Amino acid sequence: MTQVIVLNGGSSSGKSGIVRCLQAVLPDPWLAVGVDVLIEAMPAAMRASDDGIEFAADGGVSVGPEFRALQFAWMAGVAAMVRAGARVIIDDVFLGGAHSQRDWLDALDGLDVLWVGVRCEREVAVSRELARGDRIGGMAESQAELVHQGVRYDLEVDTTRTEALACARTIAARIAELR
Amino acid sequence: MTQVIVLNGGSSSGKSGIVRCLQAVLPDPWLAVGVDVLIEAMPAAMRASDDGIEFAADGGVSVGPEFRALQFAWMAGVAAMVRAGARVIIDDVFLGGAHSQRDWLDALDGLDVLWVGVRCEREVAVSRELARGDRIGGMAESQAELVHQGVRYDLEVDTTRTEALACARTIAARIAELR
Amino acid sequence: MTQVIVLNGGSSSGKSGIVRCLQAVLPDPWLAVGVDVLIEAMPAAMRASDDGIEFAADGGVSVGPEFRALQFAWMAGVAAMVRAGARVIIDDVFLGGAHSQRDWLDALDGLDVLWVGVRCEREVAVSRELARGDRIGGMAESQAELVHQGVRYDLEVDTTRTEALACARTIAARIAELR
Amino acid sequence: MTQVIVLNGGSSSGKSGIVRCLQAVLPDPWLAVGVDVLIEAMPAAMRASDDGIEFAADGGVSVGPEFRALQFAWMAGVAAMVRAGARVIIDDVFLGGAHSQRDWLDALDGLDVLWVGVRCEREVAVSRELARGDRIGGMAESQAELVHQGVRYDLEVDTTRTEALACARTIAARIAELR
Repeated sequence: MTQVIVLNGGSSSGKSGIVRCLQAVLPDPWLAVGVDVLIEAMPAAMRASDDGIEFAADGGVSVGPEFRALQFAWMAGVAAMVRAGARVIIDDVFLGGAHSQRDWLDALDGLDVLWVGVRCEREVAVSRELARGDRIGGMAESQAELVHQGVRYDLEVDTTRTEALACARTIAARIAELR
Repeated sequence: MTQVIVLNGGSSSGKSGIVRCLQAVLPDPWLAVGVDVLIEAMPAAMRASDDGIEFAADGGVSVGPEFRALQFAWMAGVAAMVRAGARVIIDDVFLGGAHSQRDWLDALDGLDVLWVGVRCEREVAVSRELARGDRIGGMAESQAELVHQGVRYDLEVDTTRTEALACARTIAARIAELR
Repeated sequence: MTQVIVLNGGSSSGKSGIVRCLQAVLPDPWLAVGVDVLIEAMPAAMRASDDGIEFAADGGVSVGPEFRALQFAWMAGVAAMVRAGARVIIDDVFLGGAHSQRDWLDALDGLDVLWVGVRCEREVAVSRELARGDRIGGMAESQAELVHQGVRYDLEVDTTRTEALACARTIAARIAELR
Repeated sequence: MTQVIVLNGGSSSGKSGIVRCLQAVLPDPWLAVGVDVLIEAMPAAMRASDDGIEFAADGGVSVGPEFRALQFAWMAGVAAMVRAGARVIIDDVFLGGAHSQRDWLDALDGLDVLWVGVRCEREVAVSRELARGDRIGGMAESQAELVHQGVRYDLEVDTTRTEALACARTIAARIAELR
C-alpha cells in the first residue's frame, strides 16, 4: 500500500495543481510537503546566500552546504512522519537529477513509494511561468529537462495538454491498483 | 488606437494569466485593474454582508446596494485613469451579463475599447478551480456560461486548450491591427 | 464632510494596519487604495526597471518617467472615484516629501481631504520590517524621516507606542468632528 | 545546547514576528515550522470539517480525530528533523493547554527544548487581529488566556508593549547562556 507519492518536475510544470487535486480525489487525507515548504521554513537570509539557496537572475538555482544540511534533516523528518502513520505527497525539483532521487531513496528506505515524473513541454512551461507572474523568470526554461536526467519513475504524467485533475486521477488510479 | 481592454469571463476561466501575459507582450505599459482589486479595496466587513458582496457556499455571488454604489464610483475612476493617459486592462466577471456590459459602456463612453470574451469549457474551469485550491468552490461551475449571456465581443479566446500566452498574443495582434 | 483620508508614512510605519482599522471603525464604507495597489497594477517588468520603479538592495526606491506617467493617471482616477461618490483612504509613501503632497493636492483639487502623518521611530520601524520578513530590507530605515519633509498635516499619529486601532480611532474622531 | 525553541501563544499574540526575528538574530540557521505549516499541508477539505479542523464564526477552533492523527505524525517528523541535526523553532497554539504541552514533551523526548510563552494583553491582541484584516475574527479573544493554562515555561515574553525584535533578543540571550 502506497505511503508516499513523490512528484518530480521543473518549475511551472504543474506539480502544485496536481498535489491539490490529489488531496481532493484520494480517499484518505494526505499531507502535502514540498520543497517550497522547506524553503519557506528557512531563515530569509538563507534564501539569497552562498550558504543557502541562490536564485540567479537567469533562473539558475544553486544550493550551499548549510542548505544541504537542513535539507537532509528535513528529508529525515518527512520520512519519520510517514513511519508515524501519515500518508505524504512530496513535490520536489530534482536539481541533481538521479542524485536527488538517490537522497530521497535513502531517506525513505523501507517505505512504499510511488515515483511520479511530471513533464511539461519546455515552451509551455515557460509560457505558464509568464502567466503566473513569478518574480524570477527563467526557472521553467532551465529546469524543464534537467530535473528528469537519470530519474526512474513508476508513472509519468504530462501537463502540456492534460489538466492537473486528469493527471491526479491517473495517479490515484495507480494508487488504488496497488492496494 | 485601443485605450482599454475589457476581459470578461467566469471564475477560473484564466483571465488573470492572460492579463499578466498581455502586460508582458504589449509594447507599452498597461495598468491591470480587475474586479479583484475593487473587492480588496472594500472594507473586510463588506466582503460578507447583504450590503456588500456575498459568496455563498455553493459558489453563488450576490452584491448589495452599497457594493453597487462603490462599484460605480470605481468604474468612473478607472475611466478617468484612461482619460488621463493610462492604457488599462480590466478583467471582470459580468454577473449581470449584458447589463454589466452596459454599465461599463456608460462609464467608458467615448473611449476606444476592445471587448474580449474569455471562454473555458465548464468542466475544465471546474477542474482548474480545484487545482488552485480556492477556498470557495462552485464559482467556476455557476459562472461559466452565465457571464457571457447577451454580451457582445470584438474578440473571443478560449483557454480550454490554448495557453494564456497564446490567447494574449491573439489579443495583442488585434490591438496592433487597430493602431 | 471629509471625502478623502491621505495617510503618509515610511515603509513599516504601520499604515496598512491603520487603514484596515479605519475601514472597520468608520460608520460608512471607505475604499482603500494605496500606492501598493498601483504598483501591483503595473506590468511586472516595470517593478524592476529604469522606466518603472526600482527597489535597490539598500532599501532605496527610485521611479522612472513611465512610472510617473501612470502614477499621475492613477491619481486622477482616484480623484474621480471620490467625485463619483466614493469615500477613499489613500495610503502613500511621499518619497518626494512636499512635492509628492503637491501632486496629490493638484489631483484632489476641490475635495475635502484629511491629511494624516503616520510616524514611527526609525528604530522601531526597522525592527518591524525585520519581523514582517520583507524581501527587501532597508526601506524602513531610509524612509522614516524622508517622507515627512515639508509635508503639512491636519493630524499626526505615532505608532511607536500606540496600536493601529487606537490611531484609527483618533482619526475617526476627527472625521466625526468635521461632519 | 538548545535544539528546539517552542513558542506558545494565542492568535495575534505576535509569534510569527518573533520567529522571523529569531531566525535573523540567532547565529546559526534555524528552521521555522509552526502549526500554520501543518494546516497548510492538509487537504483543503480538512480545513472545514468535523474530521479536520473547524474555525467557527466566533473564533473557536476545534479539531477532529483525523487532524489529531496527522498532527501526531507531524510532531514525530519535526522531532526527527531535530535528531537529524536541524535546529527548529516551533510556534504553536496550545488549544489544549497543558495537554498540548504534554504531547510535545512526548514527541521531543530527550531533546533540549526551550519553552517560551508569548503573552499579549487580550485587548491588544484583539486590536492587532483587526489591523491584520484576518478573515476570521474572534480567535485572538478566545485564545488569549486559554492556551497558557497549566503550561510551564522556561521564559515568557510579552508583546503588549515590547517589539518582536526585543522579545527575540531576550530569547536569543537565553539560548546563548545555555550553550
